[in-house]
Amino acid sequence: MKRAQVFRLSMAHPGDLSALEALISGGTVRAADVVAIIGKTEGNGGVNDFTRGYFTQTLMALLSAHLGKPASQLIREIPCILSGGTEGVMSPHYSVFCISEEASATRQYSSALAIGAAFAPVATKDVGRRAQVESVATAVRQAIANAGIVKLEDVHFVQVKCPCVTVARASAAIAAGTPPRTTDPNRSMAFARAAGAFGVALALDEIKADSFNDDSLLADFTIQSPRASISSGVEVESNEVIVLGNSPAWGGDLKIAHRPMTDALDIGGIVEVFADLGIVAAPQVSARDASRVACVLVKCEPDRRGEVRGHRHTMLDDTDINAQRHIRGAVAGLVAGVVGDGRIFVSGGAEHQGPDGGGLIAVIASQNRDIA
Amino acid sequence: MKRAQVFRLSMAHPGDLSALEALISGGTVRAADVVAIIGKTEGNGGVNDFTRGYFTQTLMALLSAHLGKPASQLIREIPCILSGGTEGVMSPHYSVFCISEEASATRQYSSALAIGAAFAPVATKDVGRRAQVESVATAVRQAIANAGIVKLEDVHFVQVKCPCVTVARASAAIAAGTPPRTTDPNRSMAFARAAGAFGVALALDEIKADSFNDDSLLADFTIQSPRASISSGVEVESNEVIVLGNSPAWGGDLKIAHRPMTDALDIGGIVEVFADLGIVAAPQVSARDASRVACVLVKCEPDRRGEVRGHRHTMLDDTDINAQRHIRGAVAGLVAGVVGDGRIFVSGGAEHQGPDGGGLIAVIASQNRDIA
Amino acid sequence: MKRAQVFRLSMAHPGDLSALEALISGGTVRAADVVAIIGKTEGNGGVNDFTRGYFTQTLMALLSAHLGKPASQLIREIPCILSGGTEGVMSPHYSVFCISEEASATRQYSSALAIGAAFAPVATKDVGRRAQVESVATAVRQAIANAGIVKLEDVHFVQVKCPCVTVARASAAIAAGTPPRTTDPNRSMAFARAAGAFGVALALDEIKADSFNDDSLLADFTIQSPRASISSGVEVESNEVIVLGNSPAWGGDLKIAHRPMTDALDIGGIVEVFADLGIVAAPQVSARDASRVACVLVKCEPDRRGEVRGHRHTMLDDTDINAQRHIRGAVAGLVAGVVGDGRIFVSGGAEHQGPDGGGLIAVIASQNRDIA
Amino acid sequence: MKRAQVFRLSMAHPGDLSALEALISGGTVRAADVVAIIGKTEGNGGVNDFTRGYFTQTLMALLSAHLGKPASQLIREIPCILSGGTEGVMSPHYSVFCISEEASATRQYSSALAIGAAFAPVATKDVGRRAQVESVATAVRQAIANAGIVKLEDVHFVQVKCPCVTVARASAAIAAGTPPRTTDPNRSMAFARAAGAFGVALALDEIKADSFNDDSLLADFTIQSPRASISSGVEVESNEVIVLGNSPAWGGDLKIAHRPMTDALDIGGIVEVFADLGIVAAPQVSARDASRVACVLVKCEPDRRGEVRGHRHTMLDDTDINAQRHIRGAVAGLVAGVVGDGRIFVSGGAEHQGPDGGGLIAVIASQNRDIA
Repeated sequence: MKRAQVFRLSMAHPGDLSALEALISGGTVRAADVVAIIGKTEGNGGVNDFTRGYFTQTLMALLSAHLGKPASQLIREIPCILSGGTEGVMSPHYSVFCISEEASATRQYSSALAIGAAFAPVATKDVGRRAQVESVATAVRQAIANAGIVKLEDVHFVQVKCPCVTVARASAAIAAGTPPRTTDPNRSMAFARAAGAFGVALALDEIKADSFNDDSLLADFTIQSPRASISSGVEVESNEVIVLGNSPAWGGDLKIAHRPMTDALDIGGIVEVFADLGIVAAPQVSARDASRVACVLVKCEPDRRGEVRGHRHTMLDDTDINAQRHIRGAVAGLVAGVVGDGRIFVSGGAEHQGPDGGGLIAVIASQNRDIA
Repeated sequence: MKRAQVFRLSMAHPGDLSALEALISGGTVRAADVVAIIGKTEGNGGVNDFTRGYFTQTLMALLSAHLGKPASQLIREIPCILSGGTEGVMSPHYSVFCISEEASATRQYSSALAIGAAFAPVATKDVGRRAQVESVATAVRQAIANAGIVKLEDVHFVQVKCPCVTVARASAAIAAGTPPRTTDPNRSMAFARAAGAFGVALALDEIKADSFNDDSLLADFTIQSPRASISSGVEVESNEVIVLGNSPAWGGDLKIAHRPMTDALDIGGIVEVFADLGIVAAPQVSARDASRVACVLVKCEPDRRGEVRGHRHTMLDDTDINAQRHIRGAVAGLVAGVVGDGRIFVSGGAEHQGPDGGGLIAVIASQNRDIA
Repeated sequence: MKRAQVFRLSMAHPGDLSALEALISGGTVRAADVVAIIGKTEGNGGVNDFTRGYFTQTLMALLSAHLGKPASQLIREIPCILSGGTEGVMSPHYSVFCISEEASATRQYSSALAIGAAFAPVATKDVGRRAQVESVATAVRQAIANAGIVKLEDVHFVQVKCPCVTVARASAAIAAGTPPRTTDPNRSMAFARAAGAFGVALALDEIKADSFNDDSLLADFTIQSPRASISSGVEVESNEVIVLGNSPAWGGDLKIAHRPMTDALDIGGIVEVFADLGIVAAPQVSARDASRVACVLVKCEPDRRGEVRGHRHTMLDDTDINAQRHIRGAVAGLVAGVVGDGRIFVSGGAEHQGPDGGGLIAVIASQNRDIA
Repeated sequence: MKRAQVFRLSMAHPGDLSALEALISGGTVRAADVVAIIGKTEGNGGVNDFTRGYFTQTLMALLSAHLGKPASQLIREIPCILSGGTEGVMSPHYSVFCISEEASATRQYSSALAIGAAFAPVATKDVGRRAQVESVATAVRQAIANAGIVKLEDVHFVQVKCPCVTVARASAAIAAGTPPRTTDPNRSMAFARAAGAFGVALALDEIKADSFNDDSLLADFTIQSPRASISSGVEVESNEVIVLGNSPAWGGDLKIAHRPMTDALDIGGIVEVFADLGIVAAPQVSARDASRVACVLVKCEPDRRGEVRGHRHTMLDDTDINAQRHIRGAVAGLVAGVVGDGRIFVSGGAEHQGPDGGGLIAVIASQNRDIA
């Protein structure tokens, strides 16, 4: 029986993987069991955030040394999802997702955290178009199957990392007679995130195939998935998909839940996702229950319309601080206050990922109430 | 019988006082009743934040036009406390504190919001020293008396704006043979804030006169007042003090409460201060109750020790975003999430103002449960 | 005979007009002679730069007090062109342009600085389109006539401040069935600047009326004027035009020259514009000659193509510092090094204003070599 | 006969060492000949600039692969001096310093670039004190000897990387009864830079051993060396010294010169250092001569007194942009304009390194006028 484990580890700087090294050296983690990493590094989260590359390089060198495979191969096999920017009370950390096969495992809970992954290539000409949406949807369905999840409602979080259009890729595509939707890299990242969210929504039957077209992306914000968490970057060439859900076929004590967040002040959604896992936040998760929490994943977005609940915010017009840094800091302050811990993944760029102006929260926690 | 009123008004930009102009023109507010302003403008909150000066200039011109007094006189009579920086979900706004005399007023509540003010000059050589502490303490006692508050426990929030040492003032003091504690303006602002907090603590009997000396300022952080909110700036020459408390001698329906915040994640303190006012946040204040809230005042500080609840934060080492902007954004995200409203005053520079690494929250709300 | 004077004054902060107040009080400047202000304030130069509004409010209040006209009228009569952002070695300052009538003036030089102004309204639907180009061109021709300049080659600097599309104006235009070119305020500011530059080029016969269409704006960067300096802002409703040139009809000792800058490293263009005025920079303008310099006006732009002379720059991808702040700081460092003075006006947003990736420089200096 | 070579290479991002890899693979550079690296990465240059660590990790992995030595050993043998922050027109690049032994070399020039290195440990208690000054001086003298430079006037640039006090080191030192000068890491970095500059000045006979004491550091700015370039960081444990000068004992065609810069506008110093190398800048170095330039090294500092040539600058009071980023961008704009190339090393933190408020410039160029 497969068993999913999540190790949430702190880092002293973006090149510090010593905590994982210690777990591998000490025998707690088998390097071969590592299937994905989701982490928060202390950069700015923008185009010139090199903390993600630094971390990834260090991680792959570490795993390469233990697995005897070249880092250049591992980087295409193990999704490493990093969000730069630990604004405010966030603490730099990374969650290591592992799958182990335990022949002798005894089932303890009716269902447990299940993990599936899949990859799907996407051509530059397809970025931000229906072809990318369908490519993502196909990969999500495959990852769900890989995870052994039968019911779509048991899927709670789908992380997708999408390729975007770079200047070089755009030139090549134009030369080939297949121009991309946009040649602006930043714009293409937003389109790619939108396509990723549509793809997740399509795979999860949240939208129908005929309910949207290319013009809907970044325009019709009624279309969204509260289970889609999408990032986009120049460093990937395939859509990389990780599905997290619950399945009776898996062992272990972890379980995942999710909730949409209607806006940046939706403390209700935060409290409810903990309640879904049997954890009370009144107003804060107790220290005992907090020790059961393995991972907190949040997507958020500065409201495009310039207001939060009818009052003007200033995030979008700030030349000094990027709007995504503003919203991450604010939402992280709220979520960390409820859970009592700054080791939370809060990522911006949440177009079509949960309600417009809001986003989503997913939490993985142990079902074992005696662990603390 | 005196009656305190608080009008919380939004602004479109730092020079926009149109909401107050409308209230005065419409007869809701008498210009002569305005005794203080506390507001949040959308600057950076640093030395080069000119949004505070812009707002103040516009405000004083407005009041000058209505009162027939020169702006240069009003600026010394009406404390205008502005905190720059509406990071994250905060919304630019200002609270206008008014005192009116209502001969025919019928008492509705056993006690109500009382306001007192006082001014005390401080010499450059005294900034950041016991002499400033005692000057502030004297002014606080006088403001309490002015407010007609008898019991010290009825004082809930003391806002002090302290002069600091400028380069020019330092030179003059040195030339006079009375050198200031520091010639570094930023350092002197921190010392002035510390002296202000000590002064409030002394006046409120929270510390004893022999329990500290000059070396305690910015060093012994066990000395603090959870009712002191201090700002410091080059633009003032006197310690300007506003005392907010409750008194049976005042009419009106407002009431104030306060709580310390132990750290930036202390959602418990936030919920409790609302509970003190009969307002439930479970997890969020209802829209109906939120409409009773007249003013939310918060002080906070990035933890000097580099950690929040045992996990490293990155605020103090960030060359891109000032640490005060980080912490304001995070704490505002938490407080706004509880109250469901971004019109909150969250100010940094909280040395000795509440617990080390935390701060304080004060809320003014109507006691009338039927107003919404 | 008309005489143009330029007073370059320093400010201690954006609300500090004390230097101008002193000149007016002392009789050096007649308030009625002030026709325009061009200045550099210490904000960020972005949408949330309120130092420009603060300065303007203070200036208009000052002039209002001296002229007995309401500030709301003066703001529509006296162009006040402010560029926020004194990055690096730039020093906050403003140049006051005055025109006086001196009956007894003896001509000293064959030609001298001439100033003309004009205003032209523009509808929201026309912003960033040929209609705005033509509106600007008409106003420029009128300002040239007002200045009494006969030959187009004697025009050296045309400052235009253009209205842009705000969210409110866009909504009104759409409701009226005349949608604007873009509803994105930032994008409309760029289009308005482009239209302004095209308008100047058209009026100066640098381009022909049939050589461009709406699609050329922000696209065909071969179209440009090395004499156009355009700003755009929400605060204006008309195209405000100031023409600076030389004319034999004017008295006084000032003269203006200009040069295009081919890129951000074009020190040659800087040295040449001083040479045009008989001032040698080898490598630096002498202190004696520097005292003849009355005003230095520069436009610049981070190269869109990501390189300066074949080497990658990082300005466009920096999430921490806005690209315009980067380029202003760099070009100001170069220009200030040549002139030996940080009181220079360096403004970004130079689309179509001088060569692509470069910009322009104009200098006003006294022809009197004995003044120092 | 030893021969020094300098390869100035561009990078696409801080982890991109492909240009060096290509030179090594192609046989142009022998990995074993690499003795030092000085480069400019596109971070912010502050405590949270991880581009330096990312580059260093990538470099050491590259050299490790070629040399068969562990990276952990190489990092203590090959000084890698990186300054973060390519503000304005600066282009990310690194200069690789190589020493080769060429038995058959024919002397072409009377003297040529000579390179020497040395290391000296420093205890935490000694940081920012005379003991560190003397440790640096000893290492500088040893590096001069290693370089085979006989006359002190032939030394033109001494790069020193000094350890600083970290929180952990401070605690250990205090526990050992030998408290450091300061426990503030940022302050200790400034003290360490000052001690480094004093050490260089002492070794070069620019100051006498009895002309200063501990109190002179960061206080008596008349003490300075125009040949000292000091950085300080947590990652080093020894004072790492690289001496660059000219020596008749060395072959090759490179030569180095230096000049102090009196302030940020000192274009004269820049032009003169090129003149020292027989290169005319009037106003700009010709493209032909620019191709002879191998390395441009600049130190600069925002003037502490708040003015540049009598006019207020705003660098020190800017909460949005760090003062070092401001000054680097401005001075780089000036230097790049003179040399016509953005691949220049411009580093801040120049306390005691050249004139107060200024700094220094050193240039390495080929003496071969026919290479272009």
